[in-house]
Amino acid sequence: MSRKASLSGFHEWLPAERIVEQHVLDTLRRTFELHGFSSIETRAVETLGQLLRKGEIDKEVYAVSRLQEDQTAQSGAEAKDPNDPKRLALHFDLTVPFARYVVENAGHLAFPFRRYQIQKVWRGERPQEGRAREFTQADIDVVGDGTLPFRYDVDVALVIAEALGALPIGDFTLRINNRKLAEGFYRGIGLEDTAGVLRSIDKLEKVGAERVAELLQEELGATAEQAAQALALAQIRTEDTSFVEQVRALGVEHELLEVGLAELTEVIGELHRRAPGRAVADLSIARGLDYYTGTVYETVLTGHEQLGSICSGGRYDALASKGNRVFPGVGLSIGVTRLVMRMLSQQMATASRSVPTAVYVTLANEDSWSAAQDTAQLLRARGIAAEVAVSAEKFGKQIKYADRRGIPFVWFSEVGEDGALTHQVKDIRSGEQVDADPETWTPPAADLVPQVVQA
Amino acid sequence: MSRKASLSGFHEWLPAERIVEQHVLDTLRRTFELHGFSSIETRAVETLGQLLRKGEIDKEVYAVSRLQEDQTAQSGAEAKDPNDPKRLALHFDLTVPFARYVVENAGHLAFPFRRYQIQKVWRGERPQEGRAREFTQADIDVVGDGTLPFRYDVDVALVIAEALGALPIGDFTLRINNRKLAEGFYRGIGLEDTAGVLRSIDKLEKVGAERVAELLQEELGATAEQAAQALALAQIRTEDTSFVEQVRALGVEHELLEVGLAELTEVIGELHRRAPGRAVADLSIARGLDYYTGTVYETVLTGHEQLGSICSGGRYDALASKGNRVFPGVGLSIGVTRLVMRMLSQQMATASRSVPTAVYVTLANEDSWSAAQDTAQLLRARGIAAEVAVSAEKFGKQIKYADRRGIPFVWFSEVGEDGALTHQVKDIRSGEQVDADPETWTPPAADLVPQVVQA
Repeated sequence: MSRKASLSGFHEWLPAERIVEQHVLDTLRRTFELHGFSSIETRAVETLGQLLRKGEIDKEVYAVSRLQEDQTAQSGAEAKDPNDPKRLALHFDLTVPFARYVVENAGHLAFPFRRYQIQKVWRGERPQEGRAREFTQADIDVVGDGTLPFRYDVDVALVIAEALGALPIGDFTLRINNRKLAEGFYRGIGLEDTAGVLRSIDKLEKVGAERVAELLQEELGATAEQAAQALALAQIRTEDTSFVEQVRALGVEHELLEVGLAELTEVIGELHRRAPGRAVADLSIARGLDYYTGTVYETVLTGHEQLGSICSGGRYDALASKGNRVFPGVGLSIGVTRLVMRMLSQQMATASRSVPTAVYVTLANEDSWSAAQDTAQLLRARGIAAEVAVSAEKFGKQIKYADRRGIPFVWFSEVGEDGALTHQVKDIRSGEQVDADPETWTPPAADLVPQVVQA
Repeated sequence: MSRKASLSGFHEWLPAERIVEQHVLDTLRRTFELHGFSSIETRAVETLGQLLRKGEIDKEVYAVSRLQEDQTAQSGAEAKDPNDPKRLALHFDLTVPFARYVVENAGHLAFPFRRYQIQKVWRGERPQEGRAREFTQADIDVVGDGTLPFRYDVDVALVIAEALGALPIGDFTLRINNRKLAEGFYRGIGLEDTAGVLRSIDKLEKVGAERVAELLQEELGATAEQAAQALALAQIRTEDTSFVEQVRALGVEHELLEVGLAELTEVIGELHRRAPGRAVADLSIARGLDYYTGTVYETVLTGHEQLGSICSGGRYDALASKGNRVFPGVGLSIGVTRLVMRMLSQQMATASRSVPTAVYVTLANEDSWSAAQDTAQLLRARGIAAEVAVSAEKFGKQIKYADRRGIPFVWFSEVGEDGALTHQVKDIRSGEQVDADPETWTPPAADLVPQVVQA
């Protein structure tokens, strides 16, 4: 992490760092599959028309073009419209591509369709601390055909709490709100531009309550009292369902507010019961410009709040649509790269070694390579990663090589008096050397594969 | 596979197809790690300067630019040179990015460095049968600092033979040649433009021996006898090291030929011994324009020869260099997408189901969801993927839903007379229903996770 990326915003891991990232990805995949999510991947490119459908993100898009076509265009043969909706561009998230995938393959999928998707995405924005131009996201979504029962809003939050809880990242909190609750409340106090209010409330952490109150009055024509009420709502934060009483104490009534209160109660109640300490009802969560229609989620890492949300999402009444057919969805997206960058830069977790190899099989002489491969193969057949030396240098040199690569064990074989091979294995760290049989010897569990340990 | 990609050349799998691809990727990863290869990933983009360093592939490159910059350029503010070496483009293989990675991180790597890399690559070429514009490659390479013992040429071929042998793809053959052998032979018969001869020999399968003989004479000024000799060499194909005698019988002598014969003997001899039937010495293999300097490998799938090579590679004397420091390498690259497309289109392998879920926990009534989650969690804790129904529809409907998704087992719980839960599990396929305890019940091994089975 002290190394500088050779292209700003494009990070590459060293082998030991990659092991930490792989551990994160493997853990997420395992949790998602245990909960019945199917893996899919979508192509890296979408058409601009598809990507910009929801607007306002064109600045961040990387367009893609065949170099040959660019050369043709340069020679003046054809003018190119940079905003041609058929033009290809790299996807900037996994939600837009998933929505397209669902529409294209609706006839082949069983709904509600549970999918996870772990892929790289690209954004052309200026790289800032914690932001990358290329990064990995891990998304889960459940999408229905026509309807999607509300319980999935609880389900996906439970899966994410379990998945993040299985990572060596310490404590975290899912902050959950509900758009219907907020919008109903705003309407109840007479503010009809609910999107505008949400946009202002979204700035709360950045600019503070006083400034948000000013914005609500200046930009949305709210009275001082309306602004105060909107801010009072945004200040409610409870670990259990007691947020309901606090909202009621504000004395606002609206039908949509009731629906939102009931929904958020169901999510927070069940999370409080099944994953205590993992979630709060946080009525300041707005999720900016995203087109959510109910539950919204953010996640902060305890002690790393300034990192921003490491996992966000929400409910869409229409994730996708195809003619009259509508596909509602609910899901969350983990910012894997952001998380792994933090884990590595703060040494939250490290790999016990940088190579998968557990055993380095040495050579007694140049002719023993094939026999050494036999030994290694017996180890590998039992899941023990083994490499064979390529030249019969002095043992000291062979051991040094293994040590330098971080391989914990070296293996020695020699032809005994009866012509059969005898074997010994040495733990480089302790220096302990014992007789061993390649068909039965097993390293301690902690040495079998690289361990990723929380600091 | 009967579905048409919505963007030509960009394939996307349905969940059941993706399980086959995941099985291939997991198997490769496991084999590579058992042999001590470290995982790395490189960024998707390289500079044009880096990508085009080895020349002649510019037609296939996808350039990448920030949409905003394109809009600025369109407005005439700045002219853009499509061939600007600093321009970004998507990588078209994993070798060029790996070479850059080695140079950039040389100070942090232990050499010889064994790495595997499984990533997507992009080529802007016209999609043909079996060709894609976006596809996944799985590469292994060993790279040395200054020198790299020849035994690694044997090592990587053995690893690939084992990795491909673990896939449900039937028989395959590694076809191996050696550039030194071929070049030494050509020089020995007086043909000095060895690259030219290799280029012509590379066309042997496409245009036939007669046409190659013409090409050698027309384009390279070879005599009829020289052409006949070059073709005679290319016709040698043996499973063991008997190719040596056949080459010697052609009566050509050259120092480089001797080196090549010795090297190829070592590779074929060891493969013949350790992986019988997996490799042949095939003296027609040229690997076209690739800048290999010794061993070259191709791999064909038995019965699918017209698919072309599914795994190719070779030895580079200088995979990368940094000032005076040279990094030789040897490795192979598996065309995963090409392979998986063939596996699916020919039904060589199929997934036993399209969801990871083994058990669908039904609801007896609307209030039992949380208890059902407890049951599911007991199963998941023992590695059994379980989903919970979201509404207490009639059991028939809940079973139908599980069946439609391909989930093999449904689970029923009810509150017994003593107030404790009693459980039953039903195999949807056989209809058999038995008492079960969520803390101990286990599905048959074949039902635990989706199996990928060879047809």
